[in-house]
Amino acid sequence: MSINFPQRLLDGYASFRAGRYASEAERYRKLGEGQQKPTVMMIACCDSRAAPETIFDAGPGEIFVVRNVANLVPPYAPDGRHHSTSAALEFAVLQLGVKHIVIMGHGRCGGIRAITEPGDPLSTGDFIGKWLAGVRDVAAIVDDEKLSLAQRLTLVEQASVEHSLANLRTFPWVRVRESKGDLTLNGAWFDISLGELNVYDEESRRWAVV
Amino acid sequence: MSINFPQRLLDGYASFRAGRYASEAERYRKLGEGQQKPTVMMIACCDSRAAPETIFDAGPGEIFVVRNVANLVPPYAPDGRHHSTSAALEFAVLQLGVKHIVIMGHGRCGGIRAITEPGDPLSTGDFIGKWLAGVRDVAAIVDDEKLSLAQRLTLVEQASVEHSLANLRTFPWVRVRESKGDLTLNGAWFDISLGELNVYDEESRRWAVV
Amino acid sequence: MSINFPQRLLDGYASFRAGRYASEAERYRKLGEGQQKPTVMMIACCDSRAAPETIFDAGPGEIFVVRNVANLVPPYAPDGRHHSTSAALEFAVLQLGVKHIVIMGHGRCGGIRAITEPGDPLSTGDFIGKWLAGVRDVAAIVDDEKLSLAQRLTLVEQASVEHSLANLRTFPWVRVRESKGDLTLNGAWFDISLGELNVYDEESRRWAVV
Amino acid sequence: MSINFPQRLLDGYASFRAGRYASEAERYRKLGEGQQKPTVMMIACCDSRAAPETIFDAGPGEIFVVRNVANLVPPYAPDGRHHSTSAALEFAVLQLGVKHIVIMGHGRCGGIRAITEPGDPLSTGDFIGKWLAGVRDVAAIVDDEKLSLAQRLTLVEQASVEHSLANLRTFPWVRVRESKGDLTLNGAWFDISLGELNVYDEESRRWAVV
Repeated sequence: MSINFPQRLLDGYASFRAGRYASEAERYRKLGEGQQKPTVMMIACCDSRAAPETIFDAGPGEIFVVRNVANLVPPYAPDGRHHSTSAALEFAVLQLGVKHIVIMGHGRCGGIRAITEPGDPLSTGDFIGKWLAGVRDVAAIVDDEKLSLAQRLTLVEQASVEHSLANLRTFPWVRVRESKGDLTLNGAWFDISLGELNVYDEESRRWAVV
Repeated sequence: MSINFPQRLLDGYASFRAGRYASEAERYRKLGEGQQKPTVMMIACCDSRAAPETIFDAGPGEIFVVRNVANLVPPYAPDGRHHSTSAALEFAVLQLGVKHIVIMGHGRCGGIRAITEPGDPLSTGDFIGKWLAGVRDVAAIVDDEKLSLAQRLTLVEQASVEHSLANLRTFPWVRVRESKGDLTLNGAWFDISLGELNVYDEESRRWAVV
Repeated sequence: MSINFPQRLLDGYASFRAGRYASEAERYRKLGEGQQKPTVMMIACCDSRAAPETIFDAGPGEIFVVRNVANLVPPYAPDGRHHSTSAALEFAVLQLGVKHIVIMGHGRCGGIRAITEPGDPLSTGDFIGKWLAGVRDVAAIVDDEKLSLAQRLTLVEQASVEHSLANLRTFPWVRVRESKGDLTLNGAWFDISLGELNVYDEESRRWAVV
Repeated sequence: MSINFPQRLLDGYASFRAGRYASEAERYRKLGEGQQKPTVMMIACCDSRAAPETIFDAGPGEIFVVRNVANLVPPYAPDGRHHSTSAALEFAVLQLGVKHIVIMGHGRCGGIRAITEPGDPLSTGDFIGKWLAGVRDVAAIVDDEKLSLAQRLTLVEQASVEHSLANLRTFPWVRVRESKGDLTLNGAWFDISLGELNVYDEESRRWAVV
């Protein structure tokens, strides 16, 4: 091919064709017939080390995935503007009718670190600073001076997931479905170094390793 | 566990621990030491049937992934508001220094279909309608009456990727890096039914199967 | 006096001077010495029939009161714009350190009715329509056709208070104080006709007359 | 009751039921039949020491009350955004047809003081700073160095009411009704320590004790 497509991706695609696709061609054919029907929506980070399909060993058709920097859910704001994550949420809940929404954070999150230790903005647009502005007040809560930076970042990463859960409930159609038992909301946090999943127990307000 | 975490995900996680993680523990440990260093950024759709890591058989640390409904890149707008995709782009290009950006669309895209055949808004916020508003003009271009609906949707899905490539170049730091040869921009489209990847050749303005 | 001040108010003020003030002059003198120290913040409606100080027989210095149309709390939005209610909330929680926040709705709310049965906007600014836009999705949830209009409006009024409670928890410094036990959040609804107070039990998700 | 409702409020409510409500049950029943019909709108501060109903000894149904920090009226801005006070104004003037609008400031206003002597923002959202930004230019006018801080704050509190009166007249439907004699606009300022009401005479541009 004359097109300058990244070779690494072409190799990976060849591997997909020879492997997974070869053994699942029929499943793909069926999945391609109509609309997708996933029961889980996941809001995860763009980070290359925390792909939901890998961590949950999920096949095609299983998880509807939003990925933005620092896996944030903004609060409900029907103001007529572009809202990437809210649009995905509306589509997943009202169109696809997913049964579970999971917000998954992870360790060593560059986005969380950028807002916790702010420096010069990356560009004059300061898109990252604006996108993460809401995390700053969350980070301010974790102010224990005895904590190491790594411990503090972990707490902010987890507090930010808890905060996004609160934001999720400001979408009327999310809150009502949850209260009727038609939708579950969960928080998770993936430790990259150890490959360990932690989940949030809202009742006890504590995080625990699975 | 007392937490009501989706069982399907817990099973998948157990499979990840016993399989991939068991054989790559050392790689995860190293990846978790500092910041990620991916060379590819991919902007893909939330669709459960088109996960980049699956289609390109990518391992942890390889692809920085944004996923929004219909894999859109908005134009550069340094207006001080929240811009999910622009923030991810800024982070990937200016902070991580990725070398390739790929925008990947796919067949049977529910988002593209929603804007091509608009009906009642899903909620009064109409987040999906607002998010996809920019695609409407793109869809209007594809108005050949001899086309079947399926053919027409495919053309809109591909035209939308072409449009997002143009939007990508409205970010000054993207355009400059591309013109210096430090960054490549590519469009791709995945046919779910056939499991086939198509890529866009900007010179000939044509799409071709890999 | 030559000034055209509403006579009804001047009469009422004379009554205040001869009555309450005469018997509480010393209390006013002390309250005027420094900053106020209320322990309760109340978010109530502008409605002339549902004044918090009357319903809770509160004296000067006791309740910090926000009153807007339909007693709404918007979600946390640190976007650099004017936010009347969020400013009051920030002042009450972070400056005054109130211990309780109560959101009080009431029956026959003209604001709720205006959004539930929308007609022509009152002015080209359509300030009421914009202000209440967030209630529309809440109202859409209450769609039982067997309900009378009055029953339906009551349910929307109460559902809107529940929704504002969810919004309250998107303010990081509110959520954290609540989880530490330093702040309680409550929903109330006042039946004007019967003069009866109803409160919301978040655990059972039910409203009960006090 | 199992609900953790502030006891002080429950006691006050019991007092209301045994006192005012017991003697005015019939009035409440009638007021609850339809829409409210107040003739006065008041824009007052959230301050716990300056409740309009107390100062004007007003009963249920008499005053439509907006309360925000520092009793501000913003200028007319039909920009499609949320405007709490403008929405209340539109509702009171165009829907309820009130005959009088009174803006009431008061002494020892924490909001006015916060903007006159700015320190660190309370939160990263800086909602109070943003909300009061318009008062800063008003405060700058009162720069007589011979004044004590208390004197200066009083002048800013009163100048801010005068400014809000000017803003009120930027709403086309307010100005027109006033010029036709259908609506009066008044400024007032309440001295908490002395329990004294001061009103503004726009002709002589002076404040006088009632």
